[in-house]
Amino acid sequence: MIEPKKSYISNTKYFALTGLLSMSFVAKQKVVASEKTPNFIVIFADDMGYGDVGIYGHPTIKTPNLDRMAVEGQKWTSFYSAAPVSTPSRAGLLTGRLPIRSGMCSEKRRVLFPNSKGGLPQTELTIASALKTVGYATACVGKWHLGHLPGHRPNDHGFDYYYGIPYSNDMDKIDMDYQEALFNPKIEYFNVPLMRNTEIIERPAKQNTISQRYTEEAVKFITENKEKPFFLYLAHSMPHVPLFRSQEFENRSLAGIYGDVIEELDWSVGQVLDALKNNGLDDNTIVIFTSDNGPWLTFKQHGGSAGLLKGGKGGTWEGGMREPAIFWCPGKIKPMVVTDIGATLDLLPTFCKLANANLPSNKVYDGYDISPVLFGTGTSPRNVMLFYRDTEVFAVRKGGFKVHFVTQSEYGNESKKILEQPLLFNLNHDPAEKYDIAEKHPEIVAELKQILTYHNGTITSVENQLEK
Amino acid sequence: MIEPKKSYISNTKYFALTGLLSMSFVAKQKVVASEKTPNFIVIFADDMGYGDVGIYGHPTIKTPNLDRMAVEGQKWTSFYSAAPVSTPSRAGLLTGRLPIRSGMCSEKRRVLFPNSKGGLPQTELTIASALKTVGYATACVGKWHLGHLPGHRPNDHGFDYYYGIPYSNDMDKIDMDYQEALFNPKIEYFNVPLMRNTEIIERPAKQNTISQRYTEEAVKFITENKEKPFFLYLAHSMPHVPLFRSQEFENRSLAGIYGDVIEELDWSVGQVLDALKNNGLDDNTIVIFTSDNGPWLTFKQHGGSAGLLKGGKGGTWEGGMREPAIFWCPGKIKPMVVTDIGATLDLLPTFCKLANANLPSNKVYDGYDISPVLFGTGTSPRNVMLFYRDTEVFAVRKGGFKVHFVTQSEYGNESKKILEQPLLFNLNHDPAEKYDIAEKHPEIVAELKQILTYHNGTITSVENQLEK
Repeated sequence: MIEPKKSYISNTKYFALTGLLSMSFVAKQKVVASEKTPNFIVIFADDMGYGDVGIYGHPTIKTPNLDRMAVEGQKWTSFYSAAPVSTPSRAGLLTGRLPIRSGMCSEKRRVLFPNSKGGLPQTELTIASALKTVGYATACVGKWHLGHLPGHRPNDHGFDYYYGIPYSNDMDKIDMDYQEALFNPKIEYFNVPLMRNTEIIERPAKQNTISQRYTEEAVKFITENKEKPFFLYLAHSMPHVPLFRSQEFENRSLAGIYGDVIEELDWSVGQVLDALKNNGLDDNTIVIFTSDNGPWLTFKQHGGSAGLLKGGKGGTWEGGMREPAIFWCPGKIKPMVVTDIGATLDLLPTFCKLANANLPSNKVYDGYDISPVLFGTGTSPRNVMLFYRDTEVFAVRKGGFKVHFVTQSEYGNESKKILEQPLLFNLNHDPAEKYDIAEKHPEIVAELKQILTYHNGTITSVENQLEK
Repeated sequence: MIEPKKSYISNTKYFALTGLLSMSFVAKQKVVASEKTPNFIVIFADDMGYGDVGIYGHPTIKTPNLDRMAVEGQKWTSFYSAAPVSTPSRAGLLTGRLPIRSGMCSEKRRVLFPNSKGGLPQTELTIASALKTVGYATACVGKWHLGHLPGHRPNDHGFDYYYGIPYSNDMDKIDMDYQEALFNPKIEYFNVPLMRNTEIIERPAKQNTISQRYTEEAVKFITENKEKPFFLYLAHSMPHVPLFRSQEFENRSLAGIYGDVIEELDWSVGQVLDALKNNGLDDNTIVIFTSDNGPWLTFKQHGGSAGLLKGGKGGTWEGGMREPAIFWCPGKIKPMVVTDIGATLDLLPTFCKLANANLPSNKVYDGYDISPVLFGTGTSPRNVMLFYRDTEVFAVRKGGFKVHFVTQSEYGNESKKILEQPLLFNLNHDPAEKYDIAEKHPEIVAELKQILTYHNGTITSVENQLEK
């Protein structure tokens, strides 16, 4: 019963798969971009949980566009964000490297704040920068959260165009009661800027129309760039608290304000897919919908649901990092439910492979080219997932098995526990992490411990960007 | 935020909707059956949880047939069984009446056992009996659990044909350790009979091929009855413990033995739908897939998952009675996700309406004709659901609101609590029943209390069938 379906691979294979040996991958790539390389769109929600989409099990939030996207494309059920909080998660997605490698995580300040001085270093290569080398038009619309000062902004990292709120939408809060501000939000409580490229064009950002305006910007970018390959990173500010939605979506959902907000995001997805169809781009544009981390459970009914998964944003239980993840490209991506493991870390290597873009040979990559899964020609090369809480790996998954070496409540440091007896779960049988089987399988615990030790040895010290 | 979408209806309306006034419903029906009346198939799983189907959110159990059925048909997300345990749930489904009205529930013995003398009384009318009056061929394949002695059997209740295990598949256990028998089951541990009509044809039933043989019987019945209208009640014995599956499904699922069993049921659904298509019956056969109650959590990884819902089999939290429920009839049933409330109690009135079968005017019915929802012409007439634990209503739902008046652990009587302060949840916003809002809305608690009081007044004393 608790045997893995795939016998767990040898450590040698795992080590060979790590980015340390990515040079061989680079060598195989072609240098010249083809005109037929696909467009890429990443639609990234903020704090949306595994269970917040209809087709992932939510009973009352209606997401017909995401549901259809999943049926026409691939619904991944073991897809992870790179970290359980915003800044490191976004750094991981855009660089294909664990945030520990770029200095984009910290135990003291878990994300960047308006008074932060740091950000994604210039030494990092983003998806946008990589794709620009092969002629892609690039835009970032939405939340950035990788540094708002010069040198760290979207335009400094390969994006031709930026429009959005540069960090979380609850930042720059005016001096008032926190609970009141978050649970009964008004635009004027949050003095966050809306930027176009490097200029502030509105402050406070009128957040009630923010999902709508992001969508309009996205559709405009698609329409204006239909002749060349493009990469669009549409990183919604919602459903991060404070929750805002446009008038058309007020009280539209059965599921309250949180449902309204998700249903507006679902509408947004529909608009993007329609724009692709209307411009004849749908069969050559790979669209991915996912989220930066799990639901912010602290905010109760203003936070989302991880469905059957344990925990949420900030932690290393499945609910913190496993995300809805839908890949869509009719006629190219094979429609199916994918139970293989994937991660946002895999997007950069996958896109670069498909776009014939080179990756530098002097960097460690933590992502894999998952295009064989997308096209139905193979299984995922990712068999291991590391669960970082800030600067430390708390848990490791290999195949169906996950070991927790350290546990801690999602927020606050009060209950960090370095476990003398690590916990082992078979996620395939027990996705809710209910039944510890460590005692029965010490050999699996030992193997995953070895993977962790090896991994830790690949980490070199870099400047911490979040504590600057 | 916590206002209901529909303002909650007046008590007058609720009272008018109850079965007490069902005579008007009967009067509107035609007496003559049309040749074009649809066939009906109810596929009923045993102890399957809300979260055990892919399209209801399970990450590793693969259910392509049910998923497709849901996409082509209606996926209901607030559909309830009549009770949280087997016998009363099945009595409710087949009679359209709460089991308290037929004596088919008991606090002492929650279901029927091999040594029980009682069963569904002859005074009750089943779906099969009702449809027989208008010329339907009828078959029950699978678990009966409404009495195995003469007078109570399927053939005594309107079924032309019966094939199956007459009660739960863990009954007639030989004298051995319970845990061992259930977690490492062998056919010979459970001396349950397999019956054809009133004859025992195999004992112990070879349970490893039971799902497969039920499926073959179902397909045979469909094929043999394609010329006349028919009603097929395919009540699988699985995934009730002890778990058995055929050789083809051993270790097939990523999700362990429980996953194997569900994937065999999913295969079975595919076989039934294919048989309908192959016989040209798919556009005139309404197929419903649902389950008798929530997952039996006691059995851990041999039990299912209620997904995001709280609780499981035996209790009155949502996980005990909310079920996956898929309605399918291509071209007739409007494909959509339905968030309206429905219940297995509604099947009898709906089928009788569509088949032009009369209901007796001297009975109280607790079900509604939900065909307007199926055909996309209206909303569900059901706005209230009563959550019976055995002979007592523990909770009441009206619209989005549910009040718990009594709580108790799923099994055992040790923690029955009659709540001085009832708990109130907004299930639309909070399907996981996490956030009690009773203090803020005493008027809703009071209204639901009034519904309960009224309902209790409609109950008359009948002979208890489970304690005989």
